[in-house]
Amino acid sequence: MNAKIGILGGGQLGKMLCQASASWHLPIYVLDQNHSFPAANYATVFERGNFRKKADVLDFGRKLDVLTIEIEHIDTEALRILEAEGVKVYPQPDKVDLIKDKGLQKQFYADRGIATTPFKLYEDAAAVRRAVADGEWSLPFVQKARTGGYDGQGVAVIRDENDLENKVLDVPCLIEELADIDKELAVIVARSPSGEIAVFPTVEMEFHPTANLVEFLICPAAIDGDTDERAAALARKVVAEMEVVGLLAVELFLTKSGEMLVNEVAPRPHNSGHHTIEACMTSQYEQHLRAILDLPLGPTDLVRPAAMINLLGAEGHTGPAVYDGWKDLLAIPEVYPHLYGKAVTRPFRKMGHITALGDTVAEARARVQRARDVCRVVTG
Amino acid sequence: MNAKIGILGGGQLGKMLCQASASWHLPIYVLDQNHSFPAANYATVFERGNFRKKADVLDFGRKLDVLTIEIEHIDTEALRILEAEGVKVYPQPDKVDLIKDKGLQKQFYADRGIATTPFKLYEDAAAVRRAVADGEWSLPFVQKARTGGYDGQGVAVIRDENDLENKVLDVPCLIEELADIDKELAVIVARSPSGEIAVFPTVEMEFHPTANLVEFLICPAAIDGDTDERAAALARKVVAEMEVVGLLAVELFLTKSGEMLVNEVAPRPHNSGHHTIEACMTSQYEQHLRAILDLPLGPTDLVRPAAMINLLGAEGHTGPAVYDGWKDLLAIPEVYPHLYGKAVTRPFRKMGHITALGDTVAEARARVQRARDVCRVVTG
Repeated sequence: MNAKIGILGGGQLGKMLCQASASWHLPIYVLDQNHSFPAANYATVFERGNFRKKADVLDFGRKLDVLTIEIEHIDTEALRILEAEGVKVYPQPDKVDLIKDKGLQKQFYADRGIATTPFKLYEDAAAVRRAVADGEWSLPFVQKARTGGYDGQGVAVIRDENDLENKVLDVPCLIEELADIDKELAVIVARSPSGEIAVFPTVEMEFHPTANLVEFLICPAAIDGDTDERAAALARKVVAEMEVVGLLAVELFLTKSGEMLVNEVAPRPHNSGHHTIEACMTSQYEQHLRAILDLPLGPTDLVRPAAMINLLGAEGHTGPAVYDGWKDLLAIPEVYPHLYGKAVTRPFRKMGHITALGDTVAEARARVQRARDVCRVVTG
Repeated sequence: MNAKIGILGGGQLGKMLCQASASWHLPIYVLDQNHSFPAANYATVFERGNFRKKADVLDFGRKLDVLTIEIEHIDTEALRILEAEGVKVYPQPDKVDLIKDKGLQKQFYADRGIATTPFKLYEDAAAVRRAVADGEWSLPFVQKARTGGYDGQGVAVIRDENDLENKVLDVPCLIEELADIDKELAVIVARSPSGEIAVFPTVEMEFHPTANLVEFLICPAAIDGDTDERAAALARKVVAEMEVVGLLAVELFLTKSGEMLVNEVAPRPHNSGHHTIEACMTSQYEQHLRAILDLPLGPTDLVRPAAMINLLGAEGHTGPAVYDGWKDLLAIPEVYPHLYGKAVTRPFRKMGHITALGDTVAEARARVQRARDVCRVVTG
């Protein structure tokens, strides 16, 4: 109970981990650049530093009993040293390295017979273009930078000759087939050091009917029971094979032909699990703490259907954030806004999220849609 | 959204108010004696001071936009000055004075036709004994100190001549009939400055079958729909007549003859509302924030049946607290422990609480009972 827990990263995921630790009054330490970060005020101790720098991670970690992350882009060499010195580091540094490199990650799936889109690795843009010229790939396809991608960055869909000329990323990368996607699903699983696994209900990323953008995350997903079980089983298989300790968010493609493919994973709390705070018996944040502290995992059952949106900075507004329509938002029943407290809003910056619950997904979706319509993140 | 909120008192109720403010990233200030208090690490700013001292309350309050309390025993003179200076103080200082003095509080019910046990006010022990000698009261009866009572202190049940000789408190007091209680109920209501009122589901204090002690708080209460409506209506009437802003916890007696009587009220979050964190659509803590910030009140519906116990320091243990059986506790499904982080445990000290949910009250009660059986607060 007095184990000192550290988090590398003080963004919104770090903040929500801090919030989850409050009911158990756990001592929680956070490392990030400065006090304006979301988690700064919610950590027991907030330390300034750079989680990409070996020295900073070592200084931070040597005070701690258990160390975790809210972002993969951290110095894993320092984590390995800390692990050797006796700090419990979850997810394990080697697993983070495996996942951070999308090439290694894909290779892992291929080696273990885990369904994923066919792929191949390349050194740079020239190698990609040669492969196309050699007839290894035909358009369209997807290119992903092996490392450094985040929130859609580092991914290019190469549809035609023009894209091939101008959009191909000149970095070590993988090329994969463009899956014929019916639905994008996500399953968050947790695994404890003892190997206990708990699976959260499948989430669906619901796309806008005309714009090709994720509009809502809904839970339960609009899939049949058999598909749901396949998604859960696949996520369970991935975490069991990977032996990650902590949360693993498994993003899946359900193709039009009914295939279930692993897209990619993240070894930490995930955007697709925000709704678990209000909608599930255990939140993903508490579950992560249970896992890394080697405590029994909590039940993951969905208590109420949920829909979630990210609250993004409005276009044309950059500066100190104002939450226009806040009062109207709170008049909608079963709407749970989470503000991250980021000092400055920018167009499309994730400033918060809103979960709505309801008797049905349709009701939850209608409520969160109304919330989004009345509340805008602007400047004063 | 940037209103600075202050809380007088850094105990567990203050801590849980801080926790409720986190999702909205509100700046929250807490005043109490030192950093070992439960709320200290969960406030945006924690200030050392004494909420019973005028100067400390003034210094603290002058920085704030909205000021509230987690305990009634604060300096209301300072609050009136702050109110005159433009700080929004909820509950209003005059209401706190009315409620703090159980004599005034009872008189308020009598004046407004709100059912309560018959009572009379006395100056001291001698006056009480004279009244008995004069035949004004016959044994048994209840004596309550007009001010300063807390958690059962300041209340004496005078059953016989021996009690009359030895147990009568020598303070300004009220004497009331010993109600013939079938059930003790509590209804938490919230009222905003605009007069909007929201009523939480009725809670029952379930007594141990042989020991005369509250064992569980359960929700819904085991009462019929008509009784439930009467409880809700009575609580609503009290808050409407009193015009308190914020939460009002209304403790009720249901007598064996079916009468519903107001016992007493508290103008703040209350022990009988802890379960709302997990069991209701809006927690009492968030609801209090909504009320004092003049935001729309949230829905209070019960989502899952709940049972709650206080986690008390074990007998024979005084010193740094250790939570024995913590891991076993967390293996029970839908059990939500809240530890207050008090550094030192003492026999019967409130060190935390545990809420359990279930498909039925019986299931929730069985779970929380198991939790209590496996987890003890001891010293290391």
